[in-house]
This record gives sequence, structure tokens and C-alpha cells, in this order.
Amino acid sequence: MSLESLFGPGSIAVIGASRTPGKIGYEIFSNLLKSNFKGRVFPVNPNVTSVLGVVSYKSIRHIEAGVDLAIIAVPAAGVPEVLAECIEKKVKSVIIISSGFSETGEAGAKLEKSIKDLVGKSKIRVLGPNVLGFYDGHTGLNATFLPKERIRIPERGQISMISQSGSVGSTVLDVIGAHGIGVSKFVSYGNAMDIDESDLISYLANDSSTKVIAAFIEGLKDGKKFVDAVRAVGRRKPIIVLKGGKTESGAKAAASHTGSMAGSYKVYSSVFKQLGIVEARNWQEFLDYSKTFLQPLPKGDRIAVITDGGGFGILSTDEAEKYGLNLPEPSAKLKSSLQSASSHVGSLRNPIDLTADATVERYARVMEAVLNSGEYDGVVVVVGFQVPTLETTLVDAIERMKSFGKPILCFSTGSDFSRKLIKELESKGIPVYDSPERAVRAMAALVNYSKIAQKK
Amino acid sequence: MSLESLFGPGSIAVIGASRTPGKIGYEIFSNLLKSNFKGRVFPVNPNVTSVLGVVSYKSIRHIEAGVDLAIIAVPAAGVPEVLAECIEKKVKSVIIISSGFSETGEAGAKLEKSIKDLVGKSKIRVLGPNVLGFYDGHTGLNATFLPKERIRIPERGQISMISQSGSVGSTVLDVIGAHGIGVSKFVSYGNAMDIDESDLISYLANDSSTKVIAAFIEGLKDGKKFVDAVRAVGRRKPIIVLKGGKTESGAKAAASHTGSMAGSYKVYSSVFKQLGIVEARNWQEFLDYSKTFLQPLPKGDRIAVITDGGGFGILSTDEAEKYGLNLPEPSAKLKSSLQSASSHVGSLRNPIDLTADATVERYARVMEAVLNSGEYDGVVVVVGFQVPTLETTLVDAIERMKSFGKPILCFSTGSDFSRKLIKELESKGIPVYDSPERAVRAMAALVNYSKIAQKK
Repeated sequence: MSLESLFGPGSIAVIGASRTPGKIGYEIFSNLLKSNFKGRVFPVNPNVTSVLGVVSYKSIRHIEAGVDLAIIAVPAAGVPEVLAECIEKKVKSVIIISSGFSETGEAGAKLEKSIKDLVGKSKIRVLGPNVLGFYDGHTGLNATFLPKERIRIPERGQISMISQSGSVGSTVLDVIGAHGIGVSKFVSYGNAMDIDESDLISYLANDSSTKVIAAFIEGLKDGKKFVDAVRAVGRRKPIIVLKGGKTESGAKAAASHTGSMAGSYKVYSSVFKQLGIVEARNWQEFLDYSKTFLQPLPKGDRIAVITDGGGFGILSTDEAEKYGLNLPEPSAKLKSSLQSASSHVGSLRNPIDLTADATVERYARVMEAVLNSGEYDGVVVVVGFQVPTLETTLVDAIERMKSFGKPILCFSTGSDFSRKLIKELESKGIPVYDSPERAVRAMAALVNYSKIAQKK
Repeated sequence: MSLESLFGPGSIAVIGASRTPGKIGYEIFSNLLKSNFKGRVFPVNPNVTSVLGVVSYKSIRHIEAGVDLAIIAVPAAGVPEVLAECIEKKVKSVIIISSGFSETGEAGAKLEKSIKDLVGKSKIRVLGPNVLGFYDGHTGLNATFLPKERIRIPERGQISMISQSGSVGSTVLDVIGAHGIGVSKFVSYGNAMDIDESDLISYLANDSSTKVIAAFIEGLKDGKKFVDAVRAVGRRKPIIVLKGGKTESGAKAAASHTGSMAGSYKVYSSVFKQLGIVEARNWQEFLDYSKTFLQPLPKGDRIAVITDGGGFGILSTDEAEKYGLNLPEPSAKLKSSLQSASSHVGSLRNPIDLTADATVERYARVMEAVLNSGEYDGVVVVVGFQVPTLETTLVDAIERMKSFGKPILCFSTGSDFSRKLIKELESKGIPVYDSPERAVRAMAALVNYSKIAQKK
């Protein structure tokens, strides 16, 4: 059965809904109520008559109306019973938030096996156990227990994130929210007893609001299924994967976290490469690449670096050479038009150095000349807002360059003054990285993927 | 002559002081006035009678009192004349802010040669040309033109930073200020016509308020002098170097920036290693390592990772194995004391997983048991402030662990809620990194340096 009933339910029951703030059953129910969810929401708790003002039910069997999605937040030992009731009630999808299953050792694995057997005989689909739930940026449905006071839930956007780890998932959501970048779906899939990374990737491949799929995977449940799922995505959408448990000791840690067999990393890595997956080597690249791939793909590898700080130009150049990016010099014709764009350009080679008295006008003219020349496939812009002559309207000037349909990646960092402008840039769809090398590496990832996508 | 007259002048003249906000000559003079500088400050500008309410002089020759330090901010072509006047006036040190010298090509190199000849015949010391100036966190003396509205000038602290690039320098200052980390001296040394990286390192080696020396170097002016200077520092203070112009194209960019001959990176890198220099491979490591080395050095390589998120434990483990860090399991004895510290520990191996319902008490007891056990030389703490059960007093609990005299490095990231707490941690002297892998890499750098320092 498809995942429509999970992501687009008509009605939702929360089994283990609680009246105590801070408890998972409270936070989920409270998030649901704040979600502007159009369908009905039923709290299930045998010990109370209402939760947050909504009439509560003793069990899911006591609900007369049909239930599409049940969210289970009771202790692990109680899960088999309530799950059996859900199946009996013909609930279409279930999220098992509860932990205490295969990730905890033998007894937990046995318990997980018992619920898996229950599920196997039915048509019900299960997300979990050991998950945070999911969030849909487009419908606004927040079926997680993430506390809003602590976590900046992103706006609607085009990145979908799936994470086997709850902490990685919630942190990635919080960081992306802080940067003003939106998400389409966010799914924590934990022990992946039924719905696994492959199911989610297949679903997201056809989700029209998802442009980029980013996945934190500790271990694949079914290698062949994964290969088929990724192959079916083809060149439609980039898939970014961060693999946890790359090393022997990392794999051991993964086993005691989501009960995953992390397998040989070399095998994984080479399969990822063959499938055209963009592999993030670490947490930073995972975040960086997720936003990078919302950019238009470059048609070639000719990149210009435009900077107001010579030192950052040098660091960018070093990284570009290391990652095989091509930074060709402007042609004589372009050089002369750059010169007329600004008499104050420090270096007309590439990096093009606008120097520490750069103005918005100088940036705008040079960016425009470069993007218009046909000599470059993408631009890395170093923005030192620390430069006193630089007005804050640079943000709009950079945004205007999007009309050229080429990737524009920025490096900028600093304290409050810069932070505010960086956030503006990001919410206008211009990705900003905290280091010049990371901006260059992101461009290299985009160029490499584009080459592969053209062949696919 | 030593650099005392540069960093601790009794009186300062600003040649080219201006009444126009935004101009370099205005910003420098304004920063000086706000510096609580105890000595006299003289603006020099032939076209006005006063600058910011201070009586102005037509030339430095017109100042009757002695001048220890002159800051020159006039166009390049005018520098030889005012420099000659400074020499005649027996000014002890000069900062030449002006650019337009060897970094611009042949004509500029000739001009630089002419002022170098002037200086060579005198005892005057020159910082520059093509620099921002310097800032002293301890005296508060701000002899730069950095605009305070844009750049967070750090408080007094123990890191001294020297940067050949102005933009790299000002940005590093701004980022460090934003993190609540203090500096001792900040020096932009640009074309290094006279005072070079070696002079500055020698000076900082004996500067009692400097604990860590961090340098962004594009090209060494004198290799032997550098080796001697670094050797003389010995194991007294760690020196962190970020080298710009590592690649052939990067070296070209360096030549047109500060007129540096970047030389062969392989040679540099192996010399750095022999000298016990901590080499930062990129901008991020440069920032990370600068704050890392304020921590006590670990006596060995046995590191514990304590986390409230299993996924981050896995990523940390992967990185630790990659960088040769040792993450031994706790002994049976320590395990049992960890168990009694908290019944809710998810994994008692290493990483020690406190799980997503971790409390401050659980963190505190586990950190204490680990640090007290004698089984570990340092701790990486993953702090997911997103976890709803975690009170903000965790900041104080972590700070208390400093009493064990072992390095404690944290990974934490997120939106406003986390950002505020991260800043608190950093201002209490606990370094926080934006990714688990970076925290682990910083610990590996500390462990490696400690091994070398013990041998030195």
C-alpha cells in the first residue's frame, strides 16, 4: 500500500496522548492541534476524559469514526496490544514513536519481531519504531514531538529529509529552519521495521513538492530494494546521502542505536557512486549539499570566483584546484568589460578581486558581466559584509542574478550584522556557506552531479 | 628595534586623518579616540584645522611633542614623503595602511622598494603597507579602520592572530567576537615590507597575555628567519598556521594580493610539521583550532564521547577512527558507576549515549564519572539542546567539569534557542563546534600536538 495514508491522512488518533507538558504524548498531540489539520484528531488515553480540551477515548476501538493514521506513544511493552487494535480497526498507517526495540539488544529485537509478525499479516503500513514522526512543510502537518520553543520548524520548501536517527533529523530541521530554508517532507524512520529508506525515496521521487532528497542512513535494510528505488528516481531529483557507521567502530555504534547492520562502507560508497548519489562525507557536507542542490545545475565546469577579500580568493582557488574545478581567466573581451564595469577591480584574473572598498554597484556590474559573458557556468561570490563601503542592498543585487539561471553560491560569515544579511540571502534562495572552501566544494559537487545527470 | 613602540606607544599620529565618516582616515582616528588610549593622539591633515574635535596638524613635523607611532593613511604616491617626515621626526614605529604597492604589479613594487630603502637607513619599524592595522584586546587600543557597527571586536583574551590578508583577518576577528571568544593581539601585516610573520611570532612568544598564536600566511618573506622564530617558541605556545596559496593557481592569486611568493606547498607543509606547527587545512580548521588550543593539553589519546543523540555518536566515532583517535570502552568498574549515575543510559560503550530524554543531572553525573575515572584524557560532549528534557543549566554543569583540567570540546548547533546557549558555553571557555566531526578533529589536533610537545 502506498504512503498516501501516512502523509495525507483524513483523521488521526494519538495513542498515549497526555495532559502533561514535556511528555511525548502531550507534545505530539499539541503539535497536531497547532497544525491546522483539517481532519479529526482523537486522543486515546484510558485514564483521562479529555486532552487539551478534546474528548479522549479509552482505546482506539472506542472511536466510532474511521482512523487513517494512528500515532503510538506508549511504552514498548504496550505496543503489541495497541497495534493489534489498530489493525483490527483497519487503521491504514501507524507511526510507532516508542523506543525500546531492536536498538536495545535481544529482548527488544524479539519484541520488534513480534510486532513485525502482526504487521506482516495485515495491510497496515508502519513508520518506526524509535522515531520522531514526520512533518510536512506544505500541509503544515506536524506529527512529531519536537518542541517548538527549542526547534525552529522550517517553512514550506523543496528539500525532503529522511533520517534514520532522530537526533540528526531534529537538529538538521532546526539548523535549516534557522537558515530560513524550507522543507517539503521531514521523516524520521528509525528502526525501519516496515517503511524503510527505499519506500520513502520512492514516495518522494513522485512528490511534486520535493526537489531534493536528503537521507541520513545508518544501515540499509534491503540493498536490492534500495538500488531499484534509487534507479527509478533517475535524473529526476538529486539524492544526497550521509552514511553513518562508515568505520568498524562507527558500525558498532549504529547497531546499538537503530539496530542497523551498517555493512562495509567501501561497498556502500561505490554503490552510491554508481547510482549517481551525492555522498556527503560528514554532517557539514550533508547540510551544505542539501541546500546547494536547490540551485540550477551548471552546464559545465567553468566557475568564476568574485570576492571583496583577496585572502578568501586565494583559499577558494586552493580548494577549487584540489576538487578539480576549473577557474578559467576571463577572455580579453570580458576583461575589458569588467574594467569598464569598475575602475577599482583589484585583479581581473579569476578570482576577480573587487578589493576592500567594493560597492554594491561594483559587485552588481561585475556579476552581471560575468554571468552574461557565456564564459562561466556558475559563480562563487565571497561577500565580506565587514567591508565598510558595502551597502546591505547587495542582498537584492545578488538575488537579481538568479535570472541568469546559473548556480550562485556565496561565502559569508561574521557577527550579528553579517548574520542578518546572510539569513536574508538564504531566504531569497541564495545558499550561503560559512567558509570559502565549503562554498567551492558545494560548487564542485554540483558540477560533478551535473556531469553524471547529463549522462544518465 | 623591538615592537614595543608599535604595540605600546606613548603617543600616536594619524597621517591622513579625515572628517568624513566612512573614509579610512576617519575610521582609524575615531577608533583610536574610542580606545581609552592614555597617551596623546594627533590628527595630521593639511586641509583642516581639527578632526573629531581634536586640533589637527599640517604635517607630522608641525607636532611639537614626540610621536611614538604614526599611522599613515594617505594614497600610495604620497607615502614616501610622509614616511621621510616620520623618520626625520624620529617616530619609532609606523603603520602604512595604504595599498597600491607590490601587490599591484611592477610600478607598485618599485614604489615599495623606494620606501623600503628609506626605512633601511633608519631605525624605524614599519607594519605594512597594505594592512588594516592592529588591535590589542588587553589595552583596548584599536589602531584599525574596522567599523564597529559591522565587526564585533572581541573582548580581551588569550589568542593572538596575525594575518597577511586584511579580509581574512577582519572576518576572523568578527567571527571570534561573535562567539564570545577574546583576543590578545590582532595584527594585519599585509606586504610585510619590514615587520614580517617571524618578527610578530617572536614578539608574541614573549607576550604574557598570548597563549595561542594563529597565523594566516600567504608567503614567507624569509624561510630561515621563520624557522628560527618558530624554534625559539618551542613548546611554550602552540602556533596554528593557515597557508594561503597551496596550489599553483592559489599561489598566483597570492602574488596579486600581497605580492607574496607562495613557494612550494609541499615544502611548507613538511617544514610546518617538523617545527611542530599545527597546520589548519582550511578556514574552518583555522577558526576551530584557534579556540581549541586554549584548552588544557590531553596527557594521552583516550577520548570519551558523551552524547544525547545516537546518530551524532556514530558520526563522531567514524571521524575518530579516521583521525586515529582512541575511543576505548569504559572498564567494567566505570560502567557500573555510569549505570548507577543514571539508569537511563542508552549505551555504556563509548560513545556513551544518554538518549533523547537526557537531563542535566544525567549529563553531569556521567561527565563527572568519566573525567574522574582516570580512564580518559579528554571528552567530546555532544549537546543537542533540542532535547525537551534538557535544562539550560547544562551550560553550568559543563563549565564545572573544567576543574578536572582535561580538554572538553562540544558539538552543538541549531536555531536561536541553541545559539544563545552555545554562546554562553563559549564565553565560559568551553569551545563549541558546528559539527560532530569538527569537534572530533579538533580533539585529534590537540592530542597530536600534545604528543609532539611532550617530545620537544
